[in-house]
Amino acid sequence: MSLIQPTRIDFEDPQLSATRAEIVRELRTFLPSDAVLEQQEQVQPYECDGLSAYRQLPLLVVLPRTVEEVQRILRLCHARDVPVVARGAGTGLSGGALPRGDGVLLSLARFTRILDLDPGARTARVEPGVRNLAISEAAAPHGLYYAPDPSSQIACTIGGNVAENSGGVHCLKYGLTVHNVLAVKLVTIEGELIELGSSGLDAPGYDLLALFIGSEGMLGVTVEVTVKLLPVPERAQAILAAYDDVEKAGQAVGDIIAAGIIPAGLEMMDGPAIQAAEDFVHAGYPTDAAAILICEIDGTSQEVSEEVMRVRDLLLASGATEVRTSRDDAERLMFWKGRKAAFPAVGRISPDYYCMDGTIPRRALPEVLRRTAEMSREYGLRVANVFHAGDGNMHPLILFDANKPGELERTEELGGRILELCVEVGGTITGEHGVGIEKINQMCVQFNPEELAQFHAVKAAFDPKGLLNPGKGVPTPKRCSEYRQLPDHSHRHPH
Amino acid sequence: MSLIQPTRIDFEDPQLSATRAEIVRELRTFLPSDAVLEQQEQVQPYECDGLSAYRQLPLLVVLPRTVEEVQRILRLCHARDVPVVARGAGTGLSGGALPRGDGVLLSLARFTRILDLDPGARTARVEPGVRNLAISEAAAPHGLYYAPDPSSQIACTIGGNVAENSGGVHCLKYGLTVHNVLAVKLVTIEGELIELGSSGLDAPGYDLLALFIGSEGMLGVTVEVTVKLLPVPERAQAILAAYDDVEKAGQAVGDIIAAGIIPAGLEMMDGPAIQAAEDFVHAGYPTDAAAILICEIDGTSQEVSEEVMRVRDLLLASGATEVRTSRDDAERLMFWKGRKAAFPAVGRISPDYYCMDGTIPRRALPEVLRRTAEMSREYGLRVANVFHAGDGNMHPLILFDANKPGELERTEELGGRILELCVEVGGTITGEHGVGIEKINQMCVQFNPEELAQFHAVKAAFDPKGLLNPGKGVPTPKRCSEYRQLPDHSHRHPH
Repeated sequence: MSLIQPTRIDFEDPQLSATRAEIVRELRTFLPSDAVLEQQEQVQPYECDGLSAYRQLPLLVVLPRTVEEVQRILRLCHARDVPVVARGAGTGLSGGALPRGDGVLLSLARFTRILDLDPGARTARVEPGVRNLAISEAAAPHGLYYAPDPSSQIACTIGGNVAENSGGVHCLKYGLTVHNVLAVKLVTIEGELIELGSSGLDAPGYDLLALFIGSEGMLGVTVEVTVKLLPVPERAQAILAAYDDVEKAGQAVGDIIAAGIIPAGLEMMDGPAIQAAEDFVHAGYPTDAAAILICEIDGTSQEVSEEVMRVRDLLLASGATEVRTSRDDAERLMFWKGRKAAFPAVGRISPDYYCMDGTIPRRALPEVLRRTAEMSREYGLRVANVFHAGDGNMHPLILFDANKPGELERTEELGGRILELCVEVGGTITGEHGVGIEKINQMCVQFNPEELAQFHAVKAAFDPKGLLNPGKGVPTPKRCSEYRQLPDHSHRHPH
Repeated sequence: MSLIQPTRIDFEDPQLSATRAEIVRELRTFLPSDAVLEQQEQVQPYECDGLSAYRQLPLLVVLPRTVEEVQRILRLCHARDVPVVARGAGTGLSGGALPRGDGVLLSLARFTRILDLDPGARTARVEPGVRNLAISEAAAPHGLYYAPDPSSQIACTIGGNVAENSGGVHCLKYGLTVHNVLAVKLVTIEGELIELGSSGLDAPGYDLLALFIGSEGMLGVTVEVTVKLLPVPERAQAILAAYDDVEKAGQAVGDIIAAGIIPAGLEMMDGPAIQAAEDFVHAGYPTDAAAILICEIDGTSQEVSEEVMRVRDLLLASGATEVRTSRDDAERLMFWKGRKAAFPAVGRISPDYYCMDGTIPRRALPEVLRRTAEMSREYGLRVANVFHAGDGNMHPLILFDANKPGELERTEELGGRILELCVEVGGTITGEHGVGIEKINQMCVQFNPEELAQFHAVKAAFDPKGLLNPGKGVPTPKRCSEYRQLPDHSHRHPH
C-alpha cells in the first residue's frame, strides 16, 4: 500500500507556487485567460479520476482549444522540464489521469468536434474530447455505430479510450479500441505533430499506432482519432441462463466458444452480484442462482435465430437450471440492465467497493473463482464477481468500508493478490482499465526486469526526459526491487 | 534505382575474410560444425530472397538449433559489431532477408517443431521455422486452421510471416498476422530472451507485440510464436462475376462492403491478368472480360446460402455481364486456381515481371486503375492488375525483359511511381509484402522527417548499435534527402 500511494505535494508549497506563477505567465502569452486555471478551487475538480482513492491537486490546469495550442503547451513544458498529465473525461479506473502536484494537467475537454463522418468509407475522424457514445449517435442516421462500449460510454471520451485501449461488453466479437481505430494524430512532448496509422489495412514501418493505443498518455498527447464504424446489426437477441454452480457456468462459456459461436457479448455474474443488481434494478434475475450467464447474439435475422437455438441447446446441456430467451428488444435490454448496473448496485450494499480488472484464460475460470472465494474468506472481505466471461476479463468487486481502520489497505492487498493470481494462471493484470497507478506494483510480477527495461527504452524513444504522465504504467526497477522484497510477497511468482 | 541498389561487397575481400575466420572460430566453440557455413558455395543459396533482383553473398551463415544458440550468436555479433540478418524460408518479396556482405545470415530453418497445440484454447505454440501451411495441417484433425494464407503458404514460415505481417486472400475477413498472433518470444541483439503478448485479449504495458509484428527483423529475432487457431468454416462457396468495364467491377466491391457483407475473400483481376491466368491453368475464366471478381463466402451452411444470394443480386445490379456460383468445392477451387496462379501465369507471357504491393482506399480503385494504365503507356511497359480488392491491397505486375538495356530500371521507376500514387490517394506503399529494401525510397514519400525520426528512435530502443537487418525498412534522413532531390521527384507528394 505505502508503495503505491504517491507522495502528496502541497499546492501552497512556495517553490512550486513560484514555478506556477512563471509558467502561467508564459502560458497566458498564447492562451486566452479561460484556458489556464491556477486557483485551488479551479483545479480541485481535476484532483482525481475514476480511481478516487488517490487524489492530488495539479500544479495548474490548461484547457487548450487547438492543436497548435497543445503543441505550444508541450514545447513550453519540455523546455522547462515540467511533467504533463493529459486527461479526457476522467472516468478511468486505474488512476491514469491522476495529476502531479509539480505538473500541468492538460485537459482535452474542449476538443469536442466530429471533424468528418464518411458513411461510404465507414470512418469518423474526431477530436479526442468527443464522447464514445456521441460517435455512435452521430453515425446512427447512416445505420452505423462505433463498436467499443465501455460501461462509461456516455461520459468517457475517445482520447481516453485510446489511452487505455478500452473495451466493453461487446469486445469479444468486435475487439478493443486498438481493433477499431485506424489512425491517431498526436503531439510529442517536444511539440511535434505526428500521424500514426492510415485508412488502409496495413501501414509500412513499425506499427506505432498499436504501440500508442493503450500507452496511457506516456508517449504523446492524442489530438485526433480516426475510428472504424460498423453497420448496426439487423437484429440482436439475448439469452439468460441460471446455474446452481459457478463452475458449471464457467464450463458453459467454454462450450459456447468451442462450438465456434462468437457472441456479441457473453457475461457472467455470481450470486452476490446477481442479488445486488436485482435489488437495485429489478431485472427479473433468478436471485437463488449461484451464477447467471447473459449471452447476446447479433447479425442478420436468420443468423440470430439459428445461433440462439444452438446456444440454448448448449446451455441446457451444460446444466443450466433455467434458460430464457428475450422475446423483444425491451426484454433484451432488461437482461442487460442488471449487468450494466452491477457496479452502482454493489455500491448500494456496501459503503465502498473496489473494482478489479484482470484477464485469465477461459479454462482457468473455475480455479480463479474458487481461489478468489478462499482469499475473500481469508481477508474477511466480500467479493462480488462480474465477468466479461467470453474473453476471460474479470471484474471482481471487493466490498469494504473505508471508515473502518485498515480496511482500505486490506482491500488493496486482496486486490493485488487477485491480480497476481491472474498472472499465475497465465493471464494478465488488466483487461481494459489499464495499469495507471493502481496496478503498477503488479507490473513487477507480470514482467521480468529485461522486459521492463525494454518498456523504458521505448518510452525514452518518445519522451527522453520522462515528462509525460510520470509514475504511471511502467514501474521503475527500484520500485520493483522494493516490492519484491516485501515480506508478504515471497510466495509471488515473478516469471 | 542507383539509390536503391546496395553496394555489393566482395566475398573475397581480405579484411572481411579475416573477420569471417575470426567469427567462425568463435562460433565453432559452441556450435556444431554443420551449423556454420563459410564457403562461397555453401552460402550461395542465401544470396537473395524472393526479390531476386538484389543479390549479395553473406559473410557467413549460421543455422542454430536452440534458443540458447541464438542468444549466444547474437551476443557474439553484438560484442563484435557484426550486422545480423535473420531469414525464414526466404520467400519474402521486398528483400527483407537480403544478406549483408559484412554480416551474419541467421537462418531459423532448423526451428521446425510444433511445441504445443491446444484445441480447447485454440492456440498453437510453434517454432519460427514452422511453415505456415504446416500449422493448419497439424490443426486439421481438430477441425481448426491458421487463417492468414499468403500465396507462398506452402513454403513460407511463421517467423517470416511475423517479420512481414503477412496477409493473404482471406485477410479481409480474418485479418493479417498481427490479428492472429497471441505471443512472440524473441531474442534481442544483446541476447536477452523476451516474451511479448499473452493468451489474453489485452496485455498491460506498451503493446510491443504489435510493434514487433511487421518490424522486418529489425528489432529482434523471433524464436517462438503462439498463434490463434480458428474453426474450419462449415461451408464455403465462391461467386465469379465478369465485367466489361474495370470501374464497374471496382464499384461492385464497394457495394458488397457497403451492404455489410464481409466476404472471406474478394479478389479482382483485370483483362491482362485474366488472359494470362486462363492460358496457364484453364480455370474457365471469361477471357473477353475487362475484369473479374471472385467473392468467397464462408460460415454456417445457412449463412452462406443467404449471403451468396445477396452477393449475386448485388453483382447483377452492378452491371456484371455474367455471374457464376460454384456448385461444389471442386468448382470453387477452380475459380481460385487462376487467381492463385496469376503470378506464375504472368511469368509465362513475359521474360520477367515485377510484383508491386500497395494499399489504397477502396473508393480510389477506379482512379488508380485509370492512372496506372496511363503510366503503363507512358513507360511502354505492360501492367497486369491483381487485387485483394476487398481491402484495397493491389498487386500490379509490371511485365518487362531484364535483358533489354534499361528496362529493369524503367520498371523500378514505374513501380515507384505506382506506389507514390497509392500514397497520393490516401493509401500506403505496402499491403502485406513489407518495405525491405524494395520500397525504402517510397518511405520518404509516405512519412515526414519527424515520423521517420520516431521510427529510428524506436529502433534504437531495441537495437542501439543498429546491427539487426541494417539498411532495410526505414530510410536514413540522408537517403531521403537525396531521394527528394532527384530531378524527377519534384512532382511527388511528401506530406
